[in-house]
Amino acid sequence: MDRLFTPASIALVGASADPEKLSGRPYRYLQRHGYEGELFLVNPSHDTIDGRRCYDSVTELPRTVDLAMALVPARLTPQVVTECGAAGIPYVLVIASGFSETSEGAALEAELLDAAREAGVRLVGPNSEGLVNVPRRVGASFSSILKRESLVPGGLSVVTQSGAFGGALFQLSQDRNVGGNVWLSTGNEADLTTVDFLRHLVEDAGTDVLVSYVESLTRGGELLDVGRRAAETDTDLVAIRVGESPAGREAAASHTGSIASDDAVYEAVFEQAGVTTVWGVDEYVDLVTALSTVPAAAYPDVDAEAGRGIGVLSVSGGAAVLIADTCHRVGLPLARFADETVAAIEAEIPAYGSATNPVDVTGGIISQPELFERCMRSVATDGAVEGVVLQFGNSGGETVETCKAELLDIQAESDRPIAVVFTGGQPSPETATELREAGVLLFEDPVRAVRTLKTLADRRTARGRTARLPDRVDYADRRPLPGDGSWATVADALAEVGVSFARTVRVERADAAVDAAERIGYPVAMKLDPLVVDHKSEVGGIRVGLDDAAAVGDAYEALAALGDGVLVQEQVEGVEAVVGVVDDPDFGPVMLVGPGGVFVELFDDFAYRALPVTESMAREMVAETALGDLLDGYRGAPPGDVDALVSLLVAVSDAYATYDLAELECNPVIVTADDALAVDLLVSAGE
Amino acid sequence: MDRLFTPASIALVGASADPEKLSGRPYRYLQRHGYEGELFLVNPSHDTIDGRRCYDSVTELPRTVDLAMALVPARLTPQVVTECGAAGIPYVLVIASGFSETSEGAALEAELLDAAREAGVRLVGPNSEGLVNVPRRVGASFSSILKRESLVPGGLSVVTQSGAFGGALFQLSQDRNVGGNVWLSTGNEADLTTVDFLRHLVEDAGTDVLVSYVESLTRGGELLDVGRRAAETDTDLVAIRVGESPAGREAAASHTGSIASDDAVYEAVFEQAGVTTVWGVDEYVDLVTALSTVPAAAYPDVDAEAGRGIGVLSVSGGAAVLIADTCHRVGLPLARFADETVAAIEAEIPAYGSATNPVDVTGGIISQPELFERCMRSVATDGAVEGVVLQFGNSGGETVETCKAELLDIQAESDRPIAVVFTGGQPSPETATELREAGVLLFEDPVRAVRTLKTLADRRTARGRTARLPDRVDYADRRPLPGDGSWATVADALAEVGVSFARTVRVERADAAVDAAERIGYPVAMKLDPLVVDHKSEVGGIRVGLDDAAAVGDAYEALAALGDGVLVQEQVEGVEAVVGVVDDPDFGPVMLVGPGGVFVELFDDFAYRALPVTESMAREMVAETALGDLLDGYRGAPPGDVDALVSLLVAVSDAYATYDLAELECNPVIVTADDALAVDLLVSAGE
Repeated sequence: MDRLFTPASIALVGASADPEKLSGRPYRYLQRHGYEGELFLVNPSHDTIDGRRCYDSVTELPRTVDLAMALVPARLTPQVVTECGAAGIPYVLVIASGFSETSEGAALEAELLDAAREAGVRLVGPNSEGLVNVPRRVGASFSSILKRESLVPGGLSVVTQSGAFGGALFQLSQDRNVGGNVWLSTGNEADLTTVDFLRHLVEDAGTDVLVSYVESLTRGGELLDVGRRAAETDTDLVAIRVGESPAGREAAASHTGSIASDDAVYEAVFEQAGVTTVWGVDEYVDLVTALSTVPAAAYPDVDAEAGRGIGVLSVSGGAAVLIADTCHRVGLPLARFADETVAAIEAEIPAYGSATNPVDVTGGIISQPELFERCMRSVATDGAVEGVVLQFGNSGGETVETCKAELLDIQAESDRPIAVVFTGGQPSPETATELREAGVLLFEDPVRAVRTLKTLADRRTARGRTARLPDRVDYADRRPLPGDGSWATVADALAEVGVSFARTVRVERADAAVDAAERIGYPVAMKLDPLVVDHKSEVGGIRVGLDDAAAVGDAYEALAALGDGVLVQEQVEGVEAVVGVVDDPDFGPVMLVGPGGVFVELFDDFAYRALPVTESMAREMVAETALGDLLDGYRGAPPGDVDALVSLLVAVSDAYATYDLAELECNPVIVTADDALAVDLLVSAGE
Repeated sequence: MDRLFTPASIALVGASADPEKLSGRPYRYLQRHGYEGELFLVNPSHDTIDGRRCYDSVTELPRTVDLAMALVPARLTPQVVTECGAAGIPYVLVIASGFSETSEGAALEAELLDAAREAGVRLVGPNSEGLVNVPRRVGASFSSILKRESLVPGGLSVVTQSGAFGGALFQLSQDRNVGGNVWLSTGNEADLTTVDFLRHLVEDAGTDVLVSYVESLTRGGELLDVGRRAAETDTDLVAIRVGESPAGREAAASHTGSIASDDAVYEAVFEQAGVTTVWGVDEYVDLVTALSTVPAAAYPDVDAEAGRGIGVLSVSGGAAVLIADTCHRVGLPLARFADETVAAIEAEIPAYGSATNPVDVTGGIISQPELFERCMRSVATDGAVEGVVLQFGNSGGETVETCKAELLDIQAESDRPIAVVFTGGQPSPETATELREAGVLLFEDPVRAVRTLKTLADRRTARGRTARLPDRVDYADRRPLPGDGSWATVADALAEVGVSFARTVRVERADAAVDAAERIGYPVAMKLDPLVVDHKSEVGGIRVGLDDAAAVGDAYEALAALGDGVLVQEQVEGVEAVVGVVDDPDFGPVMLVGPGGVFVELFDDFAYRALPVTESMAREMVAETALGDLLDGYRGAPPGDVDALVSLLVAVSDAYATYDLAELECNPVIVTADDALAVDLLVSAGE
């Protein structure tokens, strides 16, 4: 996609002579921002615009261009795309609205896509606000981002499903001097999608921080590939993901025409792919500023057990308490200072201060600002400190002037992130700029400072995990489930790839049922084959605790009267879990794991992962639900075999990769002290 | 305390001639801010300061002053207080540090308090930064708040346990033009406490919004009186409560010398008292700005079922989705527009916009800003709309100029809160001021706008609840538990005030046990009297499911061998709950309710209320824990009798008010389909 993102030549098809019109803006903006490639105007209604020749059609252009921007009304876009194909133009960016985001426009969008496929052209949009490449001076957009006289270049790229909101976010970063690389409004994604653009930009050396504003993803499973590459290319992935509420989903649908998968699945797969999600404007600004400022090598490596964490120096005991509490809330440990650090601080501050972390130098600094300066180095260079919060109060504007030289020295000597919080008194604009340019993070609210340091601390952990993501599987290439679809054949096929089941025998007569029960050992459970009869509980199709031949014989007669396929099953006691795989519309195969049985309704607590699930992922899933506690043994109950459950999850993932299934559910799986056995099963075959 | 907060005369004891010293600042600040009362300087080392006479002692002053500010070193403060008493001065504000907040200073603080009691003087502090009364021009403080040339008067009062941080908060509100009334730094609260100051200020006509920064409360139970009065006097209570984490508690203790109760208790009692808690600086700023701007009469009355809620008008579909999601996250309903509203908006906006709530007028407004203007009134005047969010993007600075006149008209005609969000493009400072002064709330982040509207919506609900708070009980006036402290006498006493128990009989012989069991009906449970033997499970002191005479007889022999006091008890099946009352160090008697039995460890989910507990409070407690779901009947289990449990909670509250108890625990209470019965009991008597 280099020709798209860094086009050597651009044709503006339907360019207007009126620079105020949306179709007139791209020409003006490309000029304003100094586009250095060749620019062609195409508009049969004009001979020239701004003294520049207008061609009647792209087919008349003197050379093949890299990118055509279709500024024509919606109904004309298929024709333009066809002509672009004829002219050998590889990418067409369509800004017109009135496609699948309206009730009438879906057919036109299909027509546009057909035209593109036929012509061998790749589309951006329709309903896109365009594309900006800051360092290459490409302003192929009508977004008001480009109203600025100049843009600050840098490593931030934004791929947005909302042109207006994504534009506002990019503008906010520019306002805070966070340099930009590429900005792209994806529009309706009729052809190229968010994931396609992320795939390209994660390989782009100019992009360090890659943000996407997402309402719903097409081929979301590929986000895992992007995540793995991001870990390898040292790129930070950030998402603002919206559309989680019913009203939000409906609003998103009316806006882009698509309905997204369950929010819990989004959240899980984003985390799996190492994407940091932010909520709202402040979190976005704080995070992209920090990621753009603090080099990857400086990620704090916090470890509460080793005593490592952040160091806090505050002019106010009250703020110190708030910071300590916030660290606790977000799970960021406070460093345990070395004795020498405490002694050095104690020697400086009044007796009514606190020399341990968080340090309270006390209001004494109002008359002695050098107190703060003298303690800074002790805190920032303590071996356990991986990040620093310096909290100022109303006198912060003056205090920082006393401390500035020392602070800049400390930051220059170390790559630990330093957050300076000015609550009340503010630094002069010059000092603020000087600190920012030296790599110091500035805040007004200590809570936001701590949250930001926490996110920096998490990015190392996240990268380690995404770097180990397994290769994705081609689910198109699977074989059909063998057999007749009954329990015996399906369970056998699944057992072949490692899924364990409670011993189960299909019987055709009462005496065979008793024989089976004797071989299995009492008590046994009996039921109709769930793969043949659905909703067994409702029709009374399950019997448990059968502990002699008479009970088994009676149960056989009762069940056989209800339907075919009576099963006799080992009765297993233990912790119940639900395990399933669904074919998620946005992400493809996704596994769900959680407490089962009576705990389903009480906890409503499931973990999700896009397949394939590895052993370490399976272990995470168990730990992050209440299953972790339940299997740990509570109220004196024996602990359950977590390893066996983990193996079963991996086997279920393998089974889904092997057989052509749409859905697969084991509910419940019973986890005993030394095994994990599926006792019920539902499958539906792929189409 | 009028003489404290609006002193007609002040003596500065130990005033320094150096205006840079902490002891020199109050004189300078009182002058700067134009204190209009009589001011006396007391310092035996000087004849005059600044040309003004210095007295040797307060006893020499020509008249009795309302407030003495002790600016002397810590060790001299008891003497100063004694002299103030002799001079008839009612209030002394002590700023010196080095009291109970240090390891050595506790004795000196006790001495200071003794001196005050002896002299009939009330103390503020020690370790206080002082007191500011903005409209009365009282700057009796060294806080850097007073470095400003002038302060904006208004209805915000702040009572803070952290001088520095509380000062920074006050400054931040001043920066945002939120006018201030009283600011007071409570210091160590050796005598007067936060609750005392809140009690006074809630009656103060000048205070509309009363904020406290709290690490721990003394006599916190009285906060309920403050809460009830706040509802009556139309005062908003806000708290920043810190010290919830282990490190935060430790930091707070090293800072004020006190250890606070459990955070969950703080949270519950604050909510019970109608106090809105905020976390961090941004939330504080947003909330006090909104509370100070939006009159009490304009609280939105959102009601999802009636379709009432907020109305959203956005220039960006993306931001509209984010706003809808945020409403969902915080529990703020979106209004369901009338058909006419939708039709009116539909007539204005392009087809690819959305005319239902949240409204997306689309990026079309870049060239047609009047689109937004035309839709505003439809949204803001819809009958279901109780609050409005207007979302602008990068062109917000220009768009708002087009819309301003109409927006000011709409705000003037209605008292519904209107939040205008400028994400990206900002309004001119003049326009921002004009909007703010008209009562419009301004934001950059739509998430913060929605959270603020949610808090405004909640304040009406909270007021309704706090206005119905019961009278508090005098727990000093209780009678001793009658009897010998055994189950029979204690349970009888509790039953007398309405606590229901499972039928229980104390037996002295095996045959008596069998008789009791036959009368009660099998199966029965047997155990040693828990009021006599503790830790019964550990010593094997409980037997359940005894279903014939032989089992009861065997159990009797086994139990009698372990200790005295064998009980035979009706065995009750149902949902287990824990109910208890503890004498909380900060709040006095506090009730705890939550799921019991196997669910205790899994849920760790308790509700707390300061006593007395009324029927509606009891019902809330049940609903806010997992008990609500459990008693609703899950997985086909029969529902439990919530009314009976509620009655039991009220009875336990009554029991605690009747008998001189320190702790009382019923664990478990079994809630059956038609009753709620305590089956176990622990009590400890008051001292």
